[in-house]
Amino acid sequence: MGKTTVINGALELLEREGVSYRPINFGTFMFEVASAEGLVSDRDEMRTLPQDIQRRLQKTAAEQIARIGENIIVDTHCTVKTPKGFLAGLPEWVLRELMPDIFVLVETDEDQILRRRLSDATRTRDMEGYQGIKDHQQFNRAIAASYAMLTGCTVKAIQNPDFLLDNAVAEMAELLR
Amino acid sequence: MGKTTVINGALELLEREGVSYRPINFGTFMFEVASAEGLVSDRDEMRTLPQDIQRRLQKTAAEQIARIGENIIVDTHCTVKTPKGFLAGLPEWVLRELMPDIFVLVETDEDQILRRRLSDATRTRDMEGYQGIKDHQQFNRAIAASYAMLTGCTVKAIQNPDFLLDNAVAEMAELLR
Amino acid sequence: MGKTTVINGALELLEREGVSYRPINFGTFMFEVASAEGLVSDRDEMRTLPQDIQRRLQKTAAEQIARIGENIIVDTHCTVKTPKGFLAGLPEWVLRELMPDIFVLVETDEDQILRRRLSDATRTRDMEGYQGIKDHQQFNRAIAASYAMLTGCTVKAIQNPDFLLDNAVAEMAELLR
Repeated sequence: MGKTTVINGALELLEREGVSYRPINFGTFMFEVASAEGLVSDRDEMRTLPQDIQRRLQKTAAEQIARIGENIIVDTHCTVKTPKGFLAGLPEWVLRELMPDIFVLVETDEDQILRRRLSDATRTRDMEGYQGIKDHQQFNRAIAASYAMLTGCTVKAIQNPDFLLDNAVAEMAELLR
Repeated sequence: MGKTTVINGALELLEREGVSYRPINFGTFMFEVASAEGLVSDRDEMRTLPQDIQRRLQKTAAEQIARIGENIIVDTHCTVKTPKGFLAGLPEWVLRELMPDIFVLVETDEDQILRRRLSDATRTRDMEGYQGIKDHQQFNRAIAASYAMLTGCTVKAIQNPDFLLDNAVAEMAELLR
Repeated sequence: MGKTTVINGALELLEREGVSYRPINFGTFMFEVASAEGLVSDRDEMRTLPQDIQRRLQKTAAEQIARIGENIIVDTHCTVKTPKGFLAGLPEWVLRELMPDIFVLVETDEDQILRRRLSDATRTRDMEGYQGIKDHQQFNRAIAASYAMLTGCTVKAIQNPDFLLDNAVAEMAELLR
């Protein structure tokens, strides 16, 4: 929840200290790979691609990101909730390319997530209840554990509660320092 | 709990809509592989086979299932509770062959499982308490997350509470549709 | 918590029955590998080695342990809590060499861990709260599930509460018998 805001805040903080990271949105990067290959012309088409093509694009994107010779922070979902269930944001073929050092989970209290969503009038998608949000966060932690087993990365959960964004930003900056 | 009943109900429902799936019980399939090889003559002998033979049989069964050119639904345990601890129903060498699209966990409220077991007079095995059942279901979710990491399958938990079998069946059918 | 005590108690018990296991402390074994290679002269230097060297040492240690032709029990952390987050005690490259049969998690009630630490005056490291300890134990279980997926080992949690060490020892002995 709010992971992009936390990332941007932390990177600003670090920039002032002379520490620089390049933030990469994994979905955007994959879309650019697909566009360059002429597979899609807009981002909505991405989800209509066959599964094997999507997986190849994930792998190619991960390979290209791994070759970048800078500090990288990849902004992505730990898992995505789909109608068919939770989908790994970083399946094995992506992890083997990226081999991250640290995996940061940005979490928020279930009740706050629920309240944020209830107050978001623009939101049209199905509402999850409290338990559904909790199950999702627990599943995220469990799959993050398997990411740690496969890659040797550390897994750190950062809490991002309402009105305390600065804390989350400072914690994230500390991890990247 | 009751996964075979939920599967059969869902497949009947889908059959009427012209969608067809072949249900495969993984244990039965493995036994048939072992029988065909002359390794065992009845199912009880399966557990007496050496570990390396059992693993090879699992892998062979998974390979053969993966080659079937139909929609397949595999009925198996997420993990098995043994005296030595929880055992993965789908270890890596099985997952790499099967490469499932969806992994469905059929779950039941801990308290209901406990009551079902307490009222089952035919049951002779050691009784687990409430916490033991809860730990098992949580372990199932955690290992399912690692299945999702390795294969890219989605993981969906379906609740199968007493008196509401139709809901579980409808939910399962929706996943397979 | 207290895993070494539980291991030693269980091994003594088994020794009297003529069942013998060689206990190996993974960290100590790795240090000996590093010393033999002339990489370090005391144990504190281990953590200053570059990550790729540490990983190679882990793998080499695991290979050597796997070649020992006796019953082995490896004493190690399921995960280590570091400032950068939880780190897998048994990452993939270690698991693929060790291929354990059983993975035993020695657990203690969160509240008791907290009280033990509060009463340990020699302890200078940062105090975790109740939730932090609980999160760590849950993460341990989740990563143990991924160990089970990768290796086919069983995962058994043993409780080691205060004043009941004998129970934990007896349970551990039963697993190794």
